[in-house]
Amino acid sequence: MKDMDDVPEMMSELGRAARAAAAELAFAPAERKRAALEHAADAVWAARGTIVAANAEDLGYGTAKGLSPAMMDRLMLDAGRIGGIVAGLRAVAGQRDPVGEVIASWDMPSGLHIERVRTPLGVIGVIYESRPNVTADAGALCLKSGNAVILRGGSESFHSSRAIHACLLAGLRAAGLPEAAIQLVPTRDRAAVTEMLRMVGQIDVIVPRGGKGLVGLVQTEARVPVFAHLEGICHVYADGDADLEKARRVVLNAKTRRPGICGAAECLLIDRRFHERHGPALIEDLLAAGVEVRAEGALGSVPGTVPAAPEDFGREFLDRIIAVKLVDGVDGAIAHIRAHGSQHTEAILTENDATARRFFERLDSAILMRNASTQFADGGEFGMGAEIGIATGKLHARGPVGAEQLTSFKYLVTGDGTIRP
Amino acid sequence: MKDMDDVPEMMSELGRAARAAAAELAFAPAERKRAALEHAADAVWAARGTIVAANAEDLGYGTAKGLSPAMMDRLMLDAGRIGGIVAGLRAVAGQRDPVGEVIASWDMPSGLHIERVRTPLGVIGVIYESRPNVTADAGALCLKSGNAVILRGGSESFHSSRAIHACLLAGLRAAGLPEAAIQLVPTRDRAAVTEMLRMVGQIDVIVPRGGKGLVGLVQTEARVPVFAHLEGICHVYADGDADLEKARRVVLNAKTRRPGICGAAECLLIDRRFHERHGPALIEDLLAAGVEVRAEGALGSVPGTVPAAPEDFGREFLDRIIAVKLVDGVDGAIAHIRAHGSQHTEAILTENDATARRFFERLDSAILMRNASTQFADGGEFGMGAEIGIATGKLHARGPVGAEQLTSFKYLVTGDGTIRP
Repeated sequence: MKDMDDVPEMMSELGRAARAAAAELAFAPAERKRAALEHAADAVWAARGTIVAANAEDLGYGTAKGLSPAMMDRLMLDAGRIGGIVAGLRAVAGQRDPVGEVIASWDMPSGLHIERVRTPLGVIGVIYESRPNVTADAGALCLKSGNAVILRGGSESFHSSRAIHACLLAGLRAAGLPEAAIQLVPTRDRAAVTEMLRMVGQIDVIVPRGGKGLVGLVQTEARVPVFAHLEGICHVYADGDADLEKARRVVLNAKTRRPGICGAAECLLIDRRFHERHGPALIEDLLAAGVEVRAEGALGSVPGTVPAAPEDFGREFLDRIIAVKLVDGVDGAIAHIRAHGSQHTEAILTENDATARRFFERLDSAILMRNASTQFADGGEFGMGAEIGIATGKLHARGPVGAEQLTSFKYLVTGDGTIRP
Repeated sequence: MKDMDDVPEMMSELGRAARAAAAELAFAPAERKRAALEHAADAVWAARGTIVAANAEDLGYGTAKGLSPAMMDRLMLDAGRIGGIVAGLRAVAGQRDPVGEVIASWDMPSGLHIERVRTPLGVIGVIYESRPNVTADAGALCLKSGNAVILRGGSESFHSSRAIHACLLAGLRAAGLPEAAIQLVPTRDRAAVTEMLRMVGQIDVIVPRGGKGLVGLVQTEARVPVFAHLEGICHVYADGDADLEKARRVVLNAKTRRPGICGAAECLLIDRRFHERHGPALIEDLLAAGVEVRAEGALGSVPGTVPAAPEDFGREFLDRIIAVKLVDGVDGAIAHIRAHGSQHTEAILTENDATARRFFERLDSAILMRNASTQFADGGEFGMGAEIGIATGKLHARGPVGAEQLTSFKYLVTGDGTIRP
């Protein structure tokens, strides 16, 4: 590696190497990519001692820096978590290879046979924070989809990411694939991030993984296209025609299973008809589970709730807190979600097909659910094997972003000396 | 309309109206959109006198401005061309409605049923130059795909576009759809273009239609995503295993059918083996058809050719001019195209399946053809009914952009009180 002080020059070198690797990866045999990931999985498990030692350095740095317990937890690796990384690599290795898949084919009266065939996007940039496992997950998904990747991990996970990256390189070498297929930015200097966001022509898409601060910065500053979601302000609407038992089960799960993930419910909308019929059952369940319930208007009279402020609606708590509100039927719920949602995931609880259809038709979130927990908003739960993130934009990828969503396509057209009249 | 002097405020008002219309269009019944387009077609034909009169005003303005004969020709409307506009509207009306189509559906072991359903993108901005028919084509495709559109025609076609737009509005009214579904920027002020390019959140995608100057400006300045191709530097490669007669037919058609369209061939690459076997047959055909042949190296000895300059390779002539060059087999062609192409459309002429496969695999243009003319690079010829343009980017839309490419999707997930463990 060149002089680290010249970050733009260093990044440009990474970009050139990634471009060259991408041109080769675009037609790398599926079997070789699979082998590289299997080898990498073996290498990670074999190097678990080294990885834990590297992680200890990062944990020391994190303690000195005064990271929050949540951040320290995300950073920490032990044998169990390393086993999870190994399993993730093997799962991606075992997935169907998306590259070269014929998405559609048809014949034209002119005599042309047209095929639409899946191709890699090219070079992906991944910018993440403290979770070192993203190194393996993102590296694997990009390789599977035939893309070269430039990984820029958080400064907190610098040594852990480097140790994991070394195992990915071992996999690439063993399979005879270019090492520049998976590059890790070798400096903690934040100038590298600024640089990545401007590498138009060298990076095709940036995927930020992390908190609102990081994602917001990337979305605002990037000249390269971005697949991301800024916030997951997920709503659950309990309709007057909901089944009470299903509603209780789903609401509790949507909020409390893991309150810190982007698919956690942040707002419960209760139809007045539901409330007249069933009273505050859903709220009482949440309170009993230790959730702070911020209630608006009439719901504020339910014992144990606290009053909601206007800014509690459209807010991502990522904690055991939920905002609740009465609405007038599905149209009231739709209006509230349009005004306050983040187009991530919303759920309706109802036994009424027409009402569910209206909710599905008139809302335009990436994921809409009926009688199911918003916590299912996840590539694994959608059968994609793994995800590099969830996108709420409407161009290209939307919802969970797996290997298939990291591809583009081209048209292959066959004639027989065919000319256009 | 507000004070025209305040262009940002005016555009912002257009943006708000478009957003509101888009929310309604997203679930407008297919039949109503079809009816609006049929009504608009009737209205255009009924108003052909008015349209020709408005066009006369534009032609006068164009003459005074000293427009080139080619520009004047693009601007001109007569009964025949208005008939073409009517036919185009009816063709789009008759297409399958893409919105609501279930693209894929599957079941998960958790009990969830997942559907991926096509949705509109939202608001499209179309910026075009002198062709007034783009008003109807772009308006129709956006409406078909459930998108609201903001059209900004060239100042030369101001009156013609206004007259056509009035007919589109009549169609929307007759079908009970919001008039803000298709808006035309009501000023010639170029500040409106600058403004459109920055309307993030109000416009989802910009499609520029016009010359390299316009497209380059839009690609450089836009903060909103863009579907476009800057240039169509299309290559034809005559392989050593080509069939001579097919090759002659395709090369002549690819260059001369319409030299001014983006799918016209700009460079002919001839395999040395082809040249040894067949001599300068392809070049002689081109010369006989009145094409200026700019030949490199050994090919310069063919009588009638002129010497090629280095900058003639990777150049879009859009005229009866072609650059020709000898290469060493398919790998030589691939290397040349990677260095000089614009990822639009390239063709290989060969009877050898393995060679064709290599060309298809190792190049990544939006369209790759075998034994067929590059002039087929067109949405109509691909069976898409109509196109709003051709995209060479790799995100979202690629190749011809029709109604389907103007859509996104959402996931509809159905459970039965299903919670995530």
